[in-house]
Amino acid sequence: MPYSPLDLVTPEVRARAARVRLVCFDVDGTLTDGRLYFDTAGNEAKAFHVQDGQGLNLLRRFGFGVHMITARASKAAEKRGADLGIEVHIGIKDKLALVRALCEEHGLALEQVAFVGDDLPDLDCLRAAGLSVAPANAHPWIAEIVHWRTLARGGKGAAREVCDLLLAAQGHVEEILRKRAP
Amino acid sequence: MPYSPLDLVTPEVRARAARVRLVCFDVDGTLTDGRLYFDTAGNEAKAFHVQDGQGLNLLRRFGFGVHMITARASKAAEKRGADLGIEVHIGIKDKLALVRALCEEHGLALEQVAFVGDDLPDLDCLRAAGLSVAPANAHPWIAEIVHWRTLARGGKGAAREVCDLLLAAQGHVEEILRKRAP
Amino acid sequence: MPYSPLDLVTPEVRARAARVRLVCFDVDGTLTDGRLYFDTAGNEAKAFHVQDGQGLNLLRRFGFGVHMITARASKAAEKRGADLGIEVHIGIKDKLALVRALCEEHGLALEQVAFVGDDLPDLDCLRAAGLSVAPANAHPWIAEIVHWRTLARGGKGAAREVCDLLLAAQGHVEEILRKRAP
Amino acid sequence: MPYSPLDLVTPEVRARAARVRLVCFDVDGTLTDGRLYFDTAGNEAKAFHVQDGQGLNLLRRFGFGVHMITARASKAAEKRGADLGIEVHIGIKDKLALVRALCEEHGLALEQVAFVGDDLPDLDCLRAAGLSVAPANAHPWIAEIVHWRTLARGGKGAAREVCDLLLAAQGHVEEILRKRAP
Repeated sequence: MPYSPLDLVTPEVRARAARVRLVCFDVDGTLTDGRLYFDTAGNEAKAFHVQDGQGLNLLRRFGFGVHMITARASKAAEKRGADLGIEVHIGIKDKLALVRALCEEHGLALEQVAFVGDDLPDLDCLRAAGLSVAPANAHPWIAEIVHWRTLARGGKGAAREVCDLLLAAQGHVEEILRKRAP
Repeated sequence: MPYSPLDLVTPEVRARAARVRLVCFDVDGTLTDGRLYFDTAGNEAKAFHVQDGQGLNLLRRFGFGVHMITARASKAAEKRGADLGIEVHIGIKDKLALVRALCEEHGLALEQVAFVGDDLPDLDCLRAAGLSVAPANAHPWIAEIVHWRTLARGGKGAAREVCDLLLAAQGHVEEILRKRAP
Repeated sequence: MPYSPLDLVTPEVRARAARVRLVCFDVDGTLTDGRLYFDTAGNEAKAFHVQDGQGLNLLRRFGFGVHMITARASKAAEKRGADLGIEVHIGIKDKLALVRALCEEHGLALEQVAFVGDDLPDLDCLRAAGLSVAPANAHPWIAEIVHWRTLARGGKGAAREVCDLLLAAQGHVEEILRKRAP
Repeated sequence: MPYSPLDLVTPEVRARAARVRLVCFDVDGTLTDGRLYFDTAGNEAKAFHVQDGQGLNLLRRFGFGVHMITARASKAAEKRGADLGIEVHIGIKDKLALVRALCEEHGLALEQVAFVGDDLPDLDCLRAAGLSVAPANAHPWIAEIVHWRTLARGGKGAAREVCDLLLAAQGHVEEILRKRAP
């Protein structure tokens, strides 16, 4: 039997994961390790993780809505979103209003939303989402109110753990690991 | 009861934190992990942390004076300061003279200053400040003379721990975590 | 007696390593730590490791075929390959087809191929190679099916462990450590 | 009594450190963590550490000869050297020949040279130097032949440990930590 991410979570989290149709990720500290690289010209860079990208691709392939939502005005986040074919919302001061709008647009309830975030700007969304997740590096004020904390830190596989959980909770692992015909 | 940073410190440090009005941060090794990225053109980049920025924003919102002080001539530090709306003092050979000048300008005593630094150029300021703090990665000669050492390393949340402590010591946590009206 | 990488592995892995003539490395997460640095212009950077490069140079010096194979279209990988004089295959959607073609070109069997990878795009190659290796940071679905897992993480010496194992299994260590005449 | 780096080493290493007049540092893996950042244009960047720079400055202030020696052709290393006012030797295939030439130039014996390196290109120099040091991340073949291994890893304070040891072994700590007159 291959490794199952379902073994890492409680039945309640599994049940919540089974209902999710829309997955929203904060960027800095969640899809990155929180580092903001500034160079002499004031350009800002950040580091995303290849294994997270693999998971986000799988989410899309299996029909989940996937969004990146950040309060910063970040060209780097836009570029990573374009690289993955994922919608990126930058400069968002009221993340919960945006999530509500996305729900309305897609005819979904907040119960069907997973939100992943690490700090205070994510607080309202995490309180409202059907499945709230914090990476291992989340601020204590966030970590103590979410449904689930990943083992991995942001930018180092936390998002992938969320993807794997959702894919497993909705029965897609066997197809992912299927051996190709020789 | 939410997590309280006050639980991490001694009553003496709590008392010192309650008096602080001006907070000064060294840059390299304190607001960054000490890495200086050099590229082929000789440009220098450094990595700040998003959670530290969140804390610095809160300090400003609640009326603290916040300053970045570095001995290096660093454009990257200037850019991060501008990003956060914080005053940055670069190329400062005598940091204590600057801190004294800031005190005079704002009518404050050194007792009301918190200084956070990790290495020898911070030694005089740390010996003089009302609350002296070293990140977990500080040089041993610094770590052994400060009032408080954070659990986190520079550039990875050390500054945020200082912000949280000051905000908690002066009674602002409840407002920060208040639920918005639905 | 100097340190021997042969002491770290089972006799089976040693036997597999003794047969290898062609060594293929995935890039992101294997020759790097998986971080994809995006800047404001959308440029992508990644970090390779100097000790890995030293090992790849030794593989070439002792006659192994060495290839980097990545699904991403990565200029940074091309540049690192050129730096090391190693062939780089970018934008490869079907890695196993490429490995089969390389075998045919060089008159080798899959048994003589070592493949090192960390995630699902490497799955087919790892199932087919004579020696399959995963870095310590590999996804669990990969880690559980390979012949050997390195102690080091990708981009932090994992590739070097593979190089050292192959060099030792084929008897080249004494020459590598030989003292030069004074 | 302030922290003393002399407490970390054997009497033999202390005696060797007391004789040193010339200190040579490998670059990648020793003054950096070994990461070579490649961007899309093929530019190479690397990360030095601010606390190491502080130590190198102190070595110079107290009259030690300080050199950076690397086999790579690295503009980034040249820039860091210029930043610190230290001589940088790049593209050096035979490091021991260079060290011998530096000794001759300055009228020193190899016994008065400290060499710090992490991998095979440093092997000859480490075998010949009066004090040979490896950072914590050194390759096992290096780590097992040096006089001393630092607690810190390359690029994260390893060089600073060497500087502190040399400064302490030659009696300069008291002056470094002296309180300025108020």
